[in-house]
Amino acid sequence: MPTERDPVLPRLTRATACLTQEIRVLDAAGEERTIRIPDERPLTVYVDRHELVTLMTLGQYPEWLVLGYLLNQRLLDDPRQVDSVTVDWSVDAAAVRTRNGRGGSKALRTGAVRPVLNTGCAQGTMFAEQMADLGTMRLAAADSARIDRSTLLAALERMRTQPSVHRDAGSVHGTALFHGSELLFFVEDVGRHNAVDTVAGWMAMHGIDGDDKLLLTTGRLTSEMVIKAARMRVPIVVSRNGISAMGHSLAERLGMTLVGRATGRRFLCYTGASRFDPDPPAAGPPPLR
Amino acid sequence: MPTERDPVLPRLTRATACLTQEIRVLDAAGEERTIRIPDERPLTVYVDRHELVTLMTLGQYPEWLVLGYLLNQRLLDDPRQVDSVTVDWSVDAAAVRTRNGRGGSKALRTGAVRPVLNTGCAQGTMFAEQMADLGTMRLAAADSARIDRSTLLAALERMRTQPSVHRDAGSVHGTALFHGSELLFFVEDVGRHNAVDTVAGWMAMHGIDGDDKLLLTTGRLTSEMVIKAARMRVPIVVSRNGISAMGHSLAERLGMTLVGRATGRRFLCYTGASRFDPDPPAAGPPPLR
Repeated sequence: MPTERDPVLPRLTRATACLTQEIRVLDAAGEERTIRIPDERPLTVYVDRHELVTLMTLGQYPEWLVLGYLLNQRLLDDPRQVDSVTVDWSVDAAAVRTRNGRGGSKALRTGAVRPVLNTGCAQGTMFAEQMADLGTMRLAAADSARIDRSTLLAALERMRTQPSVHRDAGSVHGTALFHGSELLFFVEDVGRHNAVDTVAGWMAMHGIDGDDKLLLTTGRLTSEMVIKAARMRVPIVVSRNGISAMGHSLAERLGMTLVGRATGRRFLCYTGASRFDPDPPAAGPPPLR
Repeated sequence: MPTERDPVLPRLTRATACLTQEIRVLDAAGEERTIRIPDERPLTVYVDRHELVTLMTLGQYPEWLVLGYLLNQRLLDDPRQVDSVTVDWSVDAAAVRTRNGRGGSKALRTGAVRPVLNTGCAQGTMFAEQMADLGTMRLAAADSARIDRSTLLAALERMRTQPSVHRDAGSVHGTALFHGSELLFFVEDVGRHNAVDTVAGWMAMHGIDGDDKLLLTTGRLTSEMVIKAARMRVPIVVSRNGISAMGHSLAERLGMTLVGRATGRRFLCYTGASRFDPDPPAAGPPPLR
């Protein structure tokens, strides 16, 4: 059933699923205990009845996940190419119907999946072609998309206090989209790449532009994370975690600002320091707020 | 050039690569600092000149990684099907030559890769077929492969004191194979699945049986980790990290003992508690030592 008004946007179901489950465990003292763990389910994606891929997911926002996955994998150029995304947990399936059939997307038409198995969590697969069109990606200029230290710390504090499945059951990654220190959207998944793709799907359905946004993730800053953020046109990506060498070199090539090891009031700016004001600027272009 | 004596085992090169690199960063105080990060490189695997996959790896033991990947993905049934694995970092390639051509392996012959994108780090891709032959996997019986609390704590302490790239540069996962509290082999990689596959390759080249071994990983206990350990016939898997719901249910099906959140003297036994002695047994079958 349709959930969004804009007739040119895809119609999405809003499938819901239980996010955690209880299990019995034995602790180090030999005592039986009950703990909660995140749930995890396969979601097989069919595009115009052709099976594309199976994602393992927590299942928080499956329709946005599928849409964002297709966009970030460059299988779609525009959400308007999709007529509907129908998720049915009773069969662990997501049916994507495109407006012009798969002919509307060269990637979907050819469907030649050449997996590159990445270092990141979850959706490790990328199409090798993605590496090729890195050169075509453009991020907002350093002078128009900036971040200062106090805004970054405020965003980190906002993320820290966010209620989450992780706090309840652990073993999930969270990703949040910020405008300055304002949290716009937050999602968790068993794989951090699902979480980032879900943000992309949410942005596409809500007409949100990445140019003046900040992406905060609990996962490592690997090459695929940098590529996904670039697809979403988000120029600043912050992680509680570290960085990989490929993530570092790609971000430098793209002019993306990567901040890692961000906990409490400490962090490291790995790349794109030109966007970063160690102290709030006295004057000059306004930072993201 | 050959490095192993046994003529029926594959001949492996011993390609070496730099494991860490220095980068300049800006810290929270706005000070420039130099830190080390793990290196990361693509390794494209060719089997009898056919491109199979590209792995993103730290590059510690690439030949064992490739062999273990092929075995754990069920593309090979036996390392003796391979004549040689030649890694050349100047072209980021691993050339696998099989003894009977790809005809020697149905999976390699058909080569139909149906990716399942998993929640685990790194090598997220599995062949859907793998799920099918879970039923055929047999682990050592609970009474013949046991672990007691003191042995587990000793293994954890041994792992804690192991020199590592992680200590120097962070952002890598480590996996170790133990016999009781004796560390037999340790490897790190930018993706934890690469690390586990490298252990599988090392076991295959050294004729090591998994039945009485313990696998200790820093990564989450996800479904693919459980499946890989089962392929390696390792009945006990321990992680510093948590568990996913699929990992939990698969381990229960396989009768595998999963221990997680193992730090210092604390841990949780998620599954297979029948293999676990909270205290060293006074009598009964000898635990792994």
